[in-house]
Amino acid sequence: MPSAAHLASIERVRASFERQNAMRLIRASLPVVEHGRAEIHLPHWDGIEQQHGFVHGGVIGMIADSAAGYAAMSVVPDGASVLTVEYKMNLVAPAIGERLIARGWVVRPGKTLIVTQAEVFAIDDGHETLCAIMQQTIMALQDKAERPSPRSISP
Amino acid sequence: MPSAAHLASIERVRASFERQNAMRLIRASLPVVEHGRAEIHLPHWDGIEQQHGFVHGGVIGMIADSAAGYAAMSVVPDGASVLTVEYKMNLVAPAIGERLIARGWVVRPGKTLIVTQAEVFAIDDGHETLCAIMQQTIMALQDKAERPSPRSISP
Amino acid sequence: MPSAAHLASIERVRASFERQNAMRLIRASLPVVEHGRAEIHLPHWDGIEQQHGFVHGGVIGMIADSAAGYAAMSVVPDGASVLTVEYKMNLVAPAIGERLIARGWVVRPGKTLIVTQAEVFAIDDGHETLCAIMQQTIMALQDKAERPSPRSISP
Amino acid sequence: MPSAAHLASIERVRASFERQNAMRLIRASLPVVEHGRAEIHLPHWDGIEQQHGFVHGGVIGMIADSAAGYAAMSVVPDGASVLTVEYKMNLVAPAIGERLIARGWVVRPGKTLIVTQAEVFAIDDGHETLCAIMQQTIMALQDKAERPSPRSISP
Repeated sequence: MPSAAHLASIERVRASFERQNAMRLIRASLPVVEHGRAEIHLPHWDGIEQQHGFVHGGVIGMIADSAAGYAAMSVVPDGASVLTVEYKMNLVAPAIGERLIARGWVVRPGKTLIVTQAEVFAIDDGHETLCAIMQQTIMALQDKAERPSPRSISP
Repeated sequence: MPSAAHLASIERVRASFERQNAMRLIRASLPVVEHGRAEIHLPHWDGIEQQHGFVHGGVIGMIADSAAGYAAMSVVPDGASVLTVEYKMNLVAPAIGERLIARGWVVRPGKTLIVTQAEVFAIDDGHETLCAIMQQTIMALQDKAERPSPRSISP
Repeated sequence: MPSAAHLASIERVRASFERQNAMRLIRASLPVVEHGRAEIHLPHWDGIEQQHGFVHGGVIGMIADSAAGYAAMSVVPDGASVLTVEYKMNLVAPAIGERLIARGWVVRPGKTLIVTQAEVFAIDDGHETLCAIMQQTIMALQDKAERPSPRSISP
Repeated sequence: MPSAAHLASIERVRASFERQNAMRLIRASLPVVEHGRAEIHLPHWDGIEQQHGFVHGGVIGMIADSAAGYAAMSVVPDGASVLTVEYKMNLVAPAIGERLIARGWVVRPGKTLIVTQAEVFAIDDGHETLCAIMQQTIMALQDKAERPSPRSISP
């Protein structure tokens, strides 16, 4: 059973995701958060396509970056927040299918730096195809809790 | 003076950008394309923000990836198209300001692979701050010209 | 049972490794090669240390790059050779122990590009610690078999 | 004119380089260190070759990593040391020539993290060819000065 501290972390991750207008803009959701891992889902819709009708590589980067970043956030103590230092992503197949799933996990947690990885899969008629792999460095900022932002997306 | 071949390439780049729904979704524009370099501009608006009110790191990745990718596309021959193989980006400062400019350029053109770099700057009251640097590998697909896609963004 | 083609590939990998003077210089060996994966071992000795007495990060990069590169070489057809396009490595813990093991594997084989990953472990008194993770892009050059080089290391 | 603090930093960089056995093993030297940049030179000799007789990509990574790392070390305060967090390198041309020069510089200095870049050139009969570009993240450890190590390379 998850500890109370883990459950509180998961709550913080969910609340942070809700404040990310950019995730709402592309219609991403965060159905899975556990200690050390997170999953972002993204339906394929025309607004996120590149010129060939596939999902834009940059959008794939957005969900990979976020899935791994939230995996990292799930392991930092209360009162800390996280920041993406850098990431590197290989696109290994075109993102064809009705939705994408980005799975991020913590490889190495540290007090200051957290190293993570993510994989992005395209789901086509129930079949998963690996589209992208990512390696990322996250910085933990102690005593800098995220504060709810008053900003909201424009109508 | 740019050659006729260079001008045709620049036209192809502009037409390709117009077909990218994802660039329209985030409100990006492509005001500068030359042989071997391209510039993408992005106004700061609430729809592309992360939880702190800054532009989402993934969105910065999208415009860096595209600026460098279009720089690469500007140097491939007629009838070829380009594909992002991979990119790596460091976020070096928060993206604070009224707009972002991503500048991409070709470091090393090759028949099959093109290596590029990009820098992203935040423009705040006329002052430019470096926000991100990116290094990227692009694949050129000979004899695979982009075809205009019939898809359009939904209302 | 491995096919004859796989066994021939493994032979080509071993012969190529033997021609790499740089691997001999650092005292690396290649005890494991299978279809799609390879393992490089490196004893800790003073010649490969950095200023703190740990194995130099660049040397860790050498064995990670080579393990993943040889994993890629094991899957290309007879007559083809491979080239490192790029790699990205995170050093996640100091390399403390009596030897290092770099394990490389193919994530996505392609006709032209092969995407690989590697992990490097430090072995300290039988206990493995993850030191580094790497993500890499390899190019396959068809019809460019490696030819035995007449060069040999100087005495 | 460099300040006394800058001169002291440069001295620390040179002393640290002298303690790196791995740099001596490959016959690298550090002829240039300034505030925020460093240059490593490497003669082409058979011990550092890969199977085609070119300098091994991992060795190119070693000198790129070190040149950029020492550029970072030149900007940290007295009493601090540096650590490579990660790097990503593209090999853009074979390293053909009588020697290599790796030039590293600081892109963005920070209290905890320093972002750097490096370029590696092959010098062939006085002509420089760009062989590799690298992007790197360095961590500064405050109050952890490097201590001279008693270790020395074996005969």
